[in-house]
Amino acid sequence: MKPRLALVPGEPAGVGPELCVQLAQRPRSDCELIAFGDPGSLLAAAQALALPLQLLDEHQPVRSAGDLRLRPVANAVASHFGQTDPRNAGAVIGALNAASDACLRREFDGLVTGPVHKAAINAGGIAYTGTTELLAARAGCEVVMMLANTVVRVALATTHLPLRAVPDAITVAGLTRTLRITWQALQQDFGIDEPRIAVLGLNPHAGEAGHLGDEEIAVIEPAMRSLREQGMQLIGPLPADTAFLPQKLAGFDAVLAMYHDQGLPVLKYSGFEQAVNLTLGLPYPRVAVDHGTALDLAGKGTADPSSLFAAVETCARIARRRQERAAGNGK
Amino acid sequence: MKPRLALVPGEPAGVGPELCVQLAQRPRSDCELIAFGDPGSLLAAAQALALPLQLLDEHQPVRSAGDLRLRPVANAVASHFGQTDPRNAGAVIGALNAASDACLRREFDGLVTGPVHKAAINAGGIAYTGTTELLAARAGCEVVMMLANTVVRVALATTHLPLRAVPDAITVAGLTRTLRITWQALQQDFGIDEPRIAVLGLNPHAGEAGHLGDEEIAVIEPAMRSLREQGMQLIGPLPADTAFLPQKLAGFDAVLAMYHDQGLPVLKYSGFEQAVNLTLGLPYPRVAVDHGTALDLAGKGTADPSSLFAAVETCARIARRRQERAAGNGK
Repeated sequence: MKPRLALVPGEPAGVGPELCVQLAQRPRSDCELIAFGDPGSLLAAAQALALPLQLLDEHQPVRSAGDLRLRPVANAVASHFGQTDPRNAGAVIGALNAASDACLRREFDGLVTGPVHKAAINAGGIAYTGTTELLAARAGCEVVMMLANTVVRVALATTHLPLRAVPDAITVAGLTRTLRITWQALQQDFGIDEPRIAVLGLNPHAGEAGHLGDEEIAVIEPAMRSLREQGMQLIGPLPADTAFLPQKLAGFDAVLAMYHDQGLPVLKYSGFEQAVNLTLGLPYPRVAVDHGTALDLAGKGTADPSSLFAAVETCARIARRRQERAAGNGK
Repeated sequence: MKPRLALVPGEPAGVGPELCVQLAQRPRSDCELIAFGDPGSLLAAAQALALPLQLLDEHQPVRSAGDLRLRPVANAVASHFGQTDPRNAGAVIGALNAASDACLRREFDGLVTGPVHKAAINAGGIAYTGTTELLAARAGCEVVMMLANTVVRVALATTHLPLRAVPDAITVAGLTRTLRITWQALQQDFGIDEPRIAVLGLNPHAGEAGHLGDEEIAVIEPAMRSLREQGMQLIGPLPADTAFLPQKLAGFDAVLAMYHDQGLPVLKYSGFEQAVNLTLGLPYPRVAVDHGTALDLAGKGTADPSSLFAAVETCARIARRRQERAAGNGK
């Protein structure tokens, strides 16, 4: 059976709705998509782009280009391209919560999300630090953020922290958990039997044997040692500056970066348009676009839908793999 | 007059000598090269690679492939490929000091250096943290480390510090000095009349308006503000993860990264072989290779000489530009 994926457009004033409209132009063979969002903002986006859009009940079949099945989550007020409205914060978060809960109830096999505007949500009086964090809390899970494109998969040991807080946030327990979750995802979701994970050092030159910081010796290596004893193939801790050289990357299935700006500049440089943001460790696969709301482009039809297309493809592939495992067909 | 460049092979047990031998196979039209190093290790490298090498007095003319002019700095003991010997630390540092002092006396117009093995120098009882630092101390200058390839130039606000020490090392005075030196080098050495420098934030998402750290607001922006008032074109503080997207890079002449692993992974990924390491702010241009001693490759002839070739070309070009300025021909 084709995986059923929940699709959340995200911020209605951004490019999320129009990217979903573009998605609806090409009926898919790899999954069924049901959008969770406001009908008005989707129709407005279709009109702005002069594309057909027929919003269907979620049980109706998709027949032609422009058909999009919808579980409506109505905005409080009409949205305008490029102008966020704090009054719609509740609907944006409501759609994420509804889709998340439907995934947790196993009504859906995966979740694909568009970009959310953090400041607009906070301005609406809702505490929100990010969709990854929201979904983790809702599911009661520890999760790992992974960014991936066709060149490299980068998992993060810490995500949205001030740089000053990073060294103390790197712990043996945290790294162990992060590596376990990443390892399991590479096996189960990416179908890699014996994943090889490169682990970056925290300090430049991976600490240079303690001359440039001791976290490699005191924290990273002990965590790696005990996981290696359990059979994981872990390479490192490696100096971050040379770990991404193409000939080295060929030997890794993923790179664990210790913090945001150590891992993501090279990921985005190496292929921004096709990059996706995965949340590993949830009971369902979740894949997001790797870009923001792009308020300045909203309604113009110039935003590149590649990341959303890649997110749907990736989520469908992982969901299919999980279905096969559950059915005992996969391994 | 062709610029005269001092060439220091670096660690004799590494690939430095053989890269210099490869350099000597192609007589150059853009500069005169005089090596500062041990004759024996250069001859041994030539023999290992089966390449001709005639070591000339520094005043003799280069006539054919394999001619290399030399100011000898003898090793204490014979070197062996792949095996550093702490007894030669004095000669390695001695060659750097001699070449540096000759540049400071204006006997030479620039300095090109091969890779040095830090641990071997320290094992020899010589305090050494890096060639950049050594040259800065010898010249009594504040300097900036810049790594450059054909894609991007990355200047560093801090270099070899534990990550934990980075936030407090970013100061208004330090950034101001770093940006001034970088700006001046872009103008004088790279011939860019109105340089545009992108300045990265310290924190992920450049601090997100203070939500993810306040150093952008408290330190980086004030430094940028006062320099902008003096006419510098500074862009940022920018989130590091998206600052290197190719379409953005096209708008910058250099990127100032706040720390080592924020700026260098993408630089090395985007073109490691041709990358060079420049020291800005010295009285003479200094360009180094952007790789290490590669002890495992030494004597095998498989090390890629591209970075050393690029370093010589870059140093010759900058030296020529400084000569022209000094002669009043340039601006």
